[in-house]
Formats: sequence, C-alpha cells, structure tokens
Amino acid sequence: MNFISKKAKIGNNVKFGNFVTVYDNVEIDDNCIIDSYCEIGYSNGREKGPLKIGANAKIRSHSILYAGSKIGKNLVTGHHVTIRENMKIGMDFQLGTLSDLQGDSVIGDYVKTHSNIFVPQFSKIGNYVWIFPYVVLANDPHPPSDEATKGPEISDFAVLGACSIIFSNVKVGKDAVVGAGCVLRHDLPDGQVAVGNPSKILGPASNIKIKDTEMPAYPWRYHFHRGYPKEIVDSWMKERS
Amino acid sequence: MNFISKKAKIGNNVKFGNFVTVYDNVEIDDNCIIDSYCEIGYSNGREKGPLKIGANAKIRSHSILYAGSKIGKNLVTGHHVTIRENMKIGMDFQLGTLSDLQGDSVIGDYVKTHSNIFVPQFSKIGNYVWIFPYVVLANDPHPPSDEATKGPEISDFAVLGACSIIFSNVKVGKDAVVGAGCVLRHDLPDGQVAVGNPSKILGPASNIKIKDTEMPAYPWRYHFHRGYPKEIVDSWMKERS
Amino acid sequence: MNFISKKAKIGNNVKFGNFVTVYDNVEIDDNCIIDSYCEIGYSNGREKGPLKIGANAKIRSHSILYAGSKIGKNLVTGHHVTIRENMKIGMDFQLGTLSDLQGDSVIGDYVKTHSNIFVPQFSKIGNYVWIFPYVVLANDPHPPSDEATKGPEISDFAVLGACSIIFSNVKVGKDAVVGAGCVLRHDLPDGQVAVGNPSKILGPASNIKIKDTEMPAYPWRYHFHRGYPKEIVDSWMKERS
Repeated sequence: MNFISKKAKIGNNVKFGNFVTVYDNVEIDDNCIIDSYCEIGYSNGREKGPLKIGANAKIRSHSILYAGSKIGKNLVTGHHVTIRENMKIGMDFQLGTLSDLQGDSVIGDYVKTHSNIFVPQFSKIGNYVWIFPYVVLANDPHPPSDEATKGPEISDFAVLGACSIIFSNVKVGKDAVVGAGCVLRHDLPDGQVAVGNPSKILGPASNIKIKDTEMPAYPWRYHFHRGYPKEIVDSWMKERS
Repeated sequence: MNFISKKAKIGNNVKFGNFVTVYDNVEIDDNCIIDSYCEIGYSNGREKGPLKIGANAKIRSHSILYAGSKIGKNLVTGHHVTIRENMKIGMDFQLGTLSDLQGDSVIGDYVKTHSNIFVPQFSKIGNYVWIFPYVVLANDPHPPSDEATKGPEISDFAVLGACSIIFSNVKVGKDAVVGAGCVLRHDLPDGQVAVGNPSKILGPASNIKIKDTEMPAYPWRYHFHRGYPKEIVDSWMKERS
Repeated sequence: MNFISKKAKIGNNVKFGNFVTVYDNVEIDDNCIIDSYCEIGYSNGREKGPLKIGANAKIRSHSILYAGSKIGKNLVTGHHVTIRENMKIGMDFQLGTLSDLQGDSVIGDYVKTHSNIFVPQFSKIGNYVWIFPYVVLANDPHPPSDEATKGPEISDFAVLGACSIIFSNVKVGKDAVVGAGCVLRHDLPDGQVAVGNPSKILGPASNIKIKDTEMPAYPWRYHFHRGYPKEIVDSWMKERS
C-alpha cells in the first residue's frame, strides 16, 4: 500500500516497495526502484523546484528525499538516508546507510560514501571522491554564528577516512588523503596525507604502499577500478603510464 | 492510513502524516504535526506515566518517542530520532536527525542539537545549550559496570563541538566551549574552551574572535540571535552592555 | 496492516507491529516480536540461504534484516538497525539503535553493543564482547582498494569504548580495553588498555580501579553480572577466586 501523488511525474518501469510516500513535487526518471518506507519529495518550504531523480536510481528503505534536489542517473542509496533540499548531485552517486545531507550543497559525479556521513549546507564535493564511515563536514568556524555560510571543498579523487572531521572553509586537495579520525582544520594540498587530532601533514600520499609491494596505494585510481566504466579506467591507466 | 489509539488524548488541530502509529499512553497538545512513519508512545515497561508532547510540536518522519517522557511546547525534531522513556525536556527543543536520547535525563529550555547526537541515561543539560553533530555523552566511568549512574552535566549556554565526547560525571561550565573532536574527561570551567584528545584547556572562549573582527565569538549569545524570542535577546544585549 | 510473505516460515507465538514487511526467504522461530516498520529478509542478491532468526527475538521498529544471516536465540535490537547478508551471530546478541552491520561477519555469543556501531564485512567478534556507542571497525588498510578483505578480530570479553576506531586486520586481545575516542592501528595484547589518537598502550587494564575502592574495574566479568545467566556468572567467580 502506497501514497503516490497523482501530480508526481513518474517515468517508465519505476517500482515501489511497500508503504511508500511520494509527494506532488517530484520527477522520477525511468527504471528507478524506490524501496519500502521511503518518503520522496518532502517539503520544508525551502525548496527551489521539484525533486528530480535521474534514471536507474535504487533508493533503499526508510530513506527521505526532499523536494528541491536534483540528482543524476544511477543513484544508489543505503537505508535511512536523508537528502535535503536544493542539493545538486551528479551521476553514479552512492550514499551509505544513515547518511545525512543537509541540503544546499554540490556533489560531483561518481562520488561514493560509506555509512553515516554528514554533509552540512554549503559544501562542495568534486568528482570521484570517496568518503568513509562517520565522516563529518562542518560549515561554521565558531558555532553557533551567522558565519555558517561555507562548508569544506573536497577536490576530485580525494579520500576522507573514517570518522574524520573537516572544518568549515577547508579545502582538501586533489588526490589528497585524510586519515581515519583526523581533525582537519587547515587546507590539505593536492596529493598529501594528513592524520591525527590536531592534524599534521605526513607528506605525499603516494609514499603509502600496498602491503608487500612497492606499488603506491595513492592515487587510488591507478589500481582500484571496481564499479567504474571502462573508458574512465582506460583514461586513468593512460595517465598513469 | 494510520493507527491512532482511541485512548490517546489528541489536542485540536493535530495533523498526522501517513503510516503513523500512536499508542494508548499519549497526550498530544494542540497544533502538533506528526509526520509519516512515526511511532509515538512506545512502551518498554519502564515508563512513569504517559508521553506528553507540548503544543506546536513538529516531529519529522521515522521518529520514535517512548511513553513516559514530558516535552515542552514548540518541539522540532529531524528524521529518525529516538526519544526514550522518562525524559524531562523544556520548551523550544530542537533535536537533529538521527539523534538518540536514551531516557531518564533532563534537558532545559531552548536547547538545540544538530544531527546524530547521543545522550545516555542520567544526563543533565541546561538551558540554551548547543550540541553539534555526532556528539556523544557517556555515563559509565569504566564500562561496563554498575556505576553507569551519572551522565555529564552541561551548563547553560555551553557549546559542544562536532564529534566531541563528554565523559560520565563531567561538568561543562556555563558559556564553556568544547572543540570539535575533543575527548573531555575532566570538568571544564565556566567560559573556558577545551580541545584535543586528550583534551587541554586553551583559556577563555572569549579569546576566539569572529573572522576579520575584534568581536569575541563567545559567549555566542552576544551576537547570535536567530530563532530566539525578542525579549530573551534583549536581556542578552542588556547583559552585554 | 502488514505484508507477510506466505513463503516465510513463521514459528508459534510470533507477534508483529504495524506496517511490517516480511519477504519470502525468512525463518522466524517461536516467541519472536517484530516491531512496526521493520523490513525482514530483504534481498540484495548476495545472500547465501534464508534469514534465520532464533527464538525469543525482540526486534525494535524501523529495523532491516537481510536474507542470508543466521542469528541465535534471544536477539534484542534497538531501532533503525541494519543487519545485512550472511552474518553469523550467536545467542543473546544485543544490538543498539542505529547500528549497522555490513554483512559477511561472525559475532559470538552474549555480545552487547550500544547505539550506532559500524561493523564492516569480514570482521570477527568473539564472545561476551562489549561495544559502546559510535564505534567504527574498518576493513581496508588504504581505502579504497581491493584489499578490503579483513576486518578486525575482537577477542572474548574485550571492551571497545565509545567512538573508538579499530583498523583493518587489527586484533584486540582477550579482556583488552580500548578507551573512548581511541584510534587503534595496531594489535592490542590480552588484558591491556589503549587510549588516544594515535593510540598508546597504558598497561594492564586491571590497574584501573572502581572509584573509591581497590577493586580492579577489569576484567569486568569479575564484578559486572547484570543480564548474564547464573551458571556463567558462577564460572566467572570461580575463575576469579
């Protein structure tokens, strides 16, 4: 039994689980799967336009997507996620169980997160970023204040380790790696690795080797290819050689 | 479609979403909104009396409130929150998405939390406290034990930064600030700021300035007023001058 | 109103809340309680066999259990938990609200967790382990990689403090204690305590005393007995003397 608004625009071959709610201001493209107990197109009055979900989305149960966000094709979510209003999200986004996107942020293509990440308003996440469990981005330099206007900027291919905290207005560079549990208050340059609380920069991430080999673990795209299209992987391998 | 017990006392102009469950031992005051998939008045047999929800509450979807708690007017919750039994909560409480209050605790007026905070049994939180994402309070000095009898005491106007951990029996003073990622094992005096793991006290929080100004960022109530009634803000500004 | 598959095997005296979903590939033993909004037996195509839930389980609302896991008798869960495919879990398991078990892991008997813990694939947790809120286990030495093949191994009676992070392939010894907020990258020997980020070993956990006494706080089984069967407690006290 579902409550699907007749005003919602639903594409072809869209499948719903049980006890699903879809509100008016929603456009769902073809071949999407909306699992049970999901609440799709919730309005808090701040949305700018409808919720648009691209083709082939797989949204797992108990998830909530607000009106006003625009999400590219091939979305995959875990359970219990919240995606609030006015997000701009690229294609092939994977969002882990219990993750909470607070709205008004930009996320690129092929971003993948594990469980329980937190992205506040006004954050900017590039392409091919990896975010591991329980990562928290912040957007206020001295909370609470009226300065909560700029979240972090995470550059392409960056890796945010489990339980790391990235402060407001901090830039994490391309190919940079933030270690698990790191509290990062300052910019991290391209390709560098930071660890600790308070954080310190250890040097090039490429110094980290895959176990029992001399192969650098970073940039990860030179050895880790699962789930990326062949033409993208080919471009990475060409770049590497 | 909802399951609303006929024994529940429901005020005027109370609105329910879809697939809501309200059990017997519940009193909901006027003008409340209970969103979809909420479970209201759940009993685990430990409750002392009914769940009482004050007027004008806005409870977002997939939230669970147990019997035995008493909550003042103007409650606002995010999604997926849990408020267990025998909580005493003041007015204008805002509780972030995924937050988990374990019951048997006291929370004052105008307390605001962001997402995913954890408050164990036997905690005491004053008035006008701010709690940022993924903060964890603890109530056992050497878990597991039979000593899990006293959570932290958080004084008025205190700020708990993202992902900070406050140990059992620790007192955070009035106007004190706990930095993001801080692991606080000892009392923090009024107006002081602590950071790090293990924590160290940096000095007066008033030494932290708002960017590009000489204005102290703390006490925050001297410059941050969004969402507070005019008469309260006026009293703060009179105190400041 | 529920959706219970007729292909599911449901024991005697099993009770369901409201808006429950039970899929085909499920076996629920006698005297279980499945609360409202639960999704039981979800398939992602990776399961090896049915979901088997032992007798006397109490599964709280908004929880999701996948097909392919086998769970012993007397399970108790909080709300909003996720137990994915191909877990092997012993008896008397208690899993806190919002916890997320990612599947393909082994958990022993009498394991108890508080809220919001994260267990990745390929983890191994012994018997009588305690896991406190927001603990994260990791299974990839340099994520993302194809090396995400071995999570931590947590030995019998070990204690993982709130918000601790245990790295991939790390062994936590029997009776060992990981302090709150500890980032543990290396093995912790039996009976030792580690704290901090990065972690350091402080020495024997038995040096920690219960307040105002000379009684060691660890091993906890010599003084904390709530919820364990008498014959087990008797064996602990005999071992102690």
